[in-house]
Amino acid sequence: MDPAPESTEERITRLHGQGIVDLHLDLPMFLYENRDRKNVLASDFLPEFEAGDIGTAAAGIYIEDQYLPDKALEIALGQVARIYVEVERCDRFTICRSYAEIKNAREQGKIGLLITMEGAEPLGTDLNLLYIFYELGLRVIGLTHARSNAAGSGGVFAPTGSSPKGLTAFGCELVRECERVGVILDLAHINPAGFDDILENTTRPVIVSHTNARKYYDIERNISDEQIKMVGTRGGVIGINSVLVSPKKEDSTL
Amino acid sequence: MDPAPESTEERITRLHGQGIVDLHLDLPMFLYENRDRKNVLASDFLPEFEAGDIGTAAAGIYIEDQYLPDKALEIALGQVARIYVEVERCDRFTICRSYAEIKNAREQGKIGLLITMEGAEPLGTDLNLLYIFYELGLRVIGLTHARSNAAGSGGVFAPTGSSPKGLTAFGCELVRECERVGVILDLAHINPAGFDDILENTTRPVIVSHTNARKYYDIERNISDEQIKMVGTRGGVIGINSVLVSPKKEDSTL
Repeated sequence: MDPAPESTEERITRLHGQGIVDLHLDLPMFLYENRDRKNVLASDFLPEFEAGDIGTAAAGIYIEDQYLPDKALEIALGQVARIYVEVERCDRFTICRSYAEIKNAREQGKIGLLITMEGAEPLGTDLNLLYIFYELGLRVIGLTHARSNAAGSGGVFAPTGSSPKGLTAFGCELVRECERVGVILDLAHINPAGFDDILENTTRPVIVSHTNARKYYDIERNISDEQIKMVGTRGGVIGINSVLVSPKKEDSTL
Repeated sequence: MDPAPESTEERITRLHGQGIVDLHLDLPMFLYENRDRKNVLASDFLPEFEAGDIGTAAAGIYIEDQYLPDKALEIALGQVARIYVEVERCDRFTICRSYAEIKNAREQGKIGLLITMEGAEPLGTDLNLLYIFYELGLRVIGLTHARSNAAGSGGVFAPTGSSPKGLTAFGCELVRECERVGVILDLAHINPAGFDDILENTTRPVIVSHTNARKYYDIERNISDEQIKMVGTRGGVIGINSVLVSPKKEDSTL
């Protein structure tokens, strides 16, 4: 006899058992912009994290256009510093640098923050800076946002029109260095040519932290069924995005 | 009966037992300037370290004038990155962040490198950046070199003439933050007024990593007998400098 079908409530409880993993949250930028306030994590984020049962959240360093290129490194470090300062002030959070630390955080009932980077602009063209960010806890990097930088080009928010070029030589070297050091490649936002180049330059699992299927909303910023399979073949993980699902309401069920 | 007097050779052997501690070495700047070469630690430093029985060396981040102010942070991080890269390439070295790690390094026969900073210019006026450098291993900071910066002013290489002003408000705050975070204050190079201000803003032991007695060579960059006693009272340590001992050959016995 088959077991009784799981109710929706039961399924939610099961899926939420270890807490939701949010693979992309623009937290560092927000903390940096609110750096004159104290306990921003506790006041602005904790209640919603708890309500949504967030167990692990990837805090993505992102540099806004007006700071590029000269201030990218400084702002990125300021963002990381804010994460450290805020986590020190609120013992419900902890910064995780490894799977063991994530597990440990969950066992202690803490929300684990992963430090990630959305766009390699803070590195400029200096591979050595990857070591700096690794030491500071960086474990996931997306080479580009939608714009172009020294590593490659991002995907456009349209069916076609992304740069036909893949990664730059620096971008390829960065991918290999990430594999060597132990930083996961995040393929969210990269253009299709760059997507292929990343997979050619690494053998490790990759992730796409926040995206959706082009099948439902055909823009290059989303990913094709073929790309989804390529990530799966590598043992990677894809995070769904609560925006960019579909312009048609009937297809947007999130 | 008194034990037989120790011979000079015996004394040297005893004093060198744990390896010499070099409290100030301009290593990061050298590594950075030679960043296109590989294995600089192994080729340019290891033979002399071994010949001199160096057990622990403080690698001092220092930013040359031509990089100030805009490039200070980037160059400092580039220097730290070079330390990491070079240490990874030569297993005779290890980066130490605590006394336990220094002891462990010695037990393994490795040369321990401490990351220190000579002049707070890389922090600009952003206290949060202290967290960044702490995470990267910074455990000792001298607020100034001979010049002035956002934290204070350095001592001149003359009997008088240093700024009569002590630390700035930022400098005082930085001293208190160093005490809180766990970064040792290094009073080498600070001017006499700043020396007093540092001691007023911290209760912890301080060091003077490289200096000599003004009694033998009266310049403000060296320290007075009274200052030597102030450091001793705090349980601090003073490292002697192999230069700036005395302009008179008969007093220069180093």
